[in-house]
Amino acid sequence: MRAEALPLRADYARFQRIQTRWADNDVYGHVNNVVYYAYFDTVINRVLTGAGLDPATSGLIGLCVESGCRYVAPASYPEELDAGLRVAKLGRTSVRYEVGIFRADADVLCAFGHFVHVFVERETRRPSPLPEGLRAALAELIP
Amino acid sequence: MRAEALPLRADYARFQRIQTRWADNDVYGHVNNVVYYAYFDTVINRVLTGAGLDPATSGLIGLCVESGCRYVAPASYPEELDAGLRVAKLGRTSVRYEVGIFRADADVLCAFGHFVHVFVERETRRPSPLPEGLRAALAELIP
Amino acid sequence: MRAEALPLRADYARFQRIQTRWADNDVYGHVNNVVYYAYFDTVINRVLTGAGLDPATSGLIGLCVESGCRYVAPASYPEELDAGLRVAKLGRTSVRYEVGIFRADADVLCAFGHFVHVFVERETRRPSPLPEGLRAALAELIP
Amino acid sequence: MRAEALPLRADYARFQRIQTRWADNDVYGHVNNVVYYAYFDTVINRVLTGAGLDPATSGLIGLCVESGCRYVAPASYPEELDAGLRVAKLGRTSVRYEVGIFRADADVLCAFGHFVHVFVERETRRPSPLPEGLRAALAELIP
Repeated sequence: MRAEALPLRADYARFQRIQTRWADNDVYGHVNNVVYYAYFDTVINRVLTGAGLDPATSGLIGLCVESGCRYVAPASYPEELDAGLRVAKLGRTSVRYEVGIFRADADVLCAFGHFVHVFVERETRRPSPLPEGLRAALAELIP
Repeated sequence: MRAEALPLRADYARFQRIQTRWADNDVYGHVNNVVYYAYFDTVINRVLTGAGLDPATSGLIGLCVESGCRYVAPASYPEELDAGLRVAKLGRTSVRYEVGIFRADADVLCAFGHFVHVFVERETRRPSPLPEGLRAALAELIP
Repeated sequence: MRAEALPLRADYARFQRIQTRWADNDVYGHVNNVVYYAYFDTVINRVLTGAGLDPATSGLIGLCVESGCRYVAPASYPEELDAGLRVAKLGRTSVRYEVGIFRADADVLCAFGHFVHVFVERETRRPSPLPEGLRAALAELIP
Repeated sequence: MRAEALPLRADYARFQRIQTRWADNDVYGHVNNVVYYAYFDTVINRVLTGAGLDPATSGLIGLCVESGCRYVAPASYPEELDAGLRVAKLGRTSVRYEVGIFRADADVLCAFGHFVHVFVERETRRPSPLPEGLRAALAELIP
């Protein structure tokens, strides 16, 4: 179906450990497809909050305009996972992140995907350039 | 950024009403990007269970191998939404669904995306042809 | 274990239909215990927003200080449910709601519980008396 | 409202670190009341799976028949939390767990609650005595 190579751990710039939760597993006993997007959201926003963007008060907020995921191998609660993160495109007002979810401490890829943030002013919801501190933090994630 | 036309209600074969929940809204006050995939999963599986596929006991199960979504306009709890569903590709062992989420009874598109199921035997997790009843139910969703 | 009678539909003041979602079912094939609290939150806040309390902007917000649930009979996606709601205690700054979750259009009780809101000023998070409009809307839910 | 003392870290037998997720925060910027029950479910089931109870295949499963929580202080993504767990009552076929959620490495109690499992046979859903291995694992959590 697709000839392209699957991403490897070495393709990602930084890793975060992810705990699975009981309800991440659906009736088929594996982490549900939807939950991987919750992982994406969580690891991406940890970078933003780490760079000083407080979701409760910041003038600038990141709105997701596109996301996607391919599912390669199942994962199951209670196992832990590793999320690899890279910035694939750093624009003036937007960022494309790519995330790979691997078994903890293993080279087994469970799923990989992308997520695009457009940064907007909280009040007007109009696109706004990334401030320098945030841009620098995201630039570190370009492999 | 993209010149392609956005989907319209008329592009979808069938609609299901969706209730939002309190926790669908994230800290920015709108339905979180992840939640749209929960809507996708819910409306797609309602078609499958309606066609007789019992997720607890069926020999065949649908595994999601790919999904994606573009976010066009915000929605917020407590509003209701309409999910339009169509089958874009009906293969021997796989199905590509496309979903459009609209404001209830309105032409406002909030988000649209796709979702690919591969049907596998529950025990072996090997691809298996769609049985006739299920194939017929899905063929009704080809616009 | 408990001799007390289980609540009946007649014990609740108002009903809201609830859609289940695919991921509400956990690995055992039934709506997970946690999800009932999401139902509680959703039906209670629909009353508050219906009474004019906008969660994004209102000066007053309801904080949950206590909740509890007893689980009587299983429910499963894709079935629909009916949530019965009553106000069991309407204080100066707090409200105790009680919720019963029934099979749709049936007398089968799945779960029942309680939920206590203390109303506080959004900024200071200090308790604040319920405004008259909200108090009147909640008083209608006293059986 | 209540004179009873709040639980302390010393009241719990074992601790597990909990990662918060982006969507744990609701529109008010704090971990939503519902999410604490997801934490309860997750830390309790980690004990059961650690004692050899495989949720996909075990003959015995734990059904939640009652839960409850009191909310004392807010928590917010992205902070981490510590869940203290103890077994308050170990019956022949049922267990009452008590959980306290604290700020990570701090004595600040965010919420505390209880959760009662009745163990049943997977097929018949009839109560069944705890096997010795599981009973021993749970007995270690009696403070």
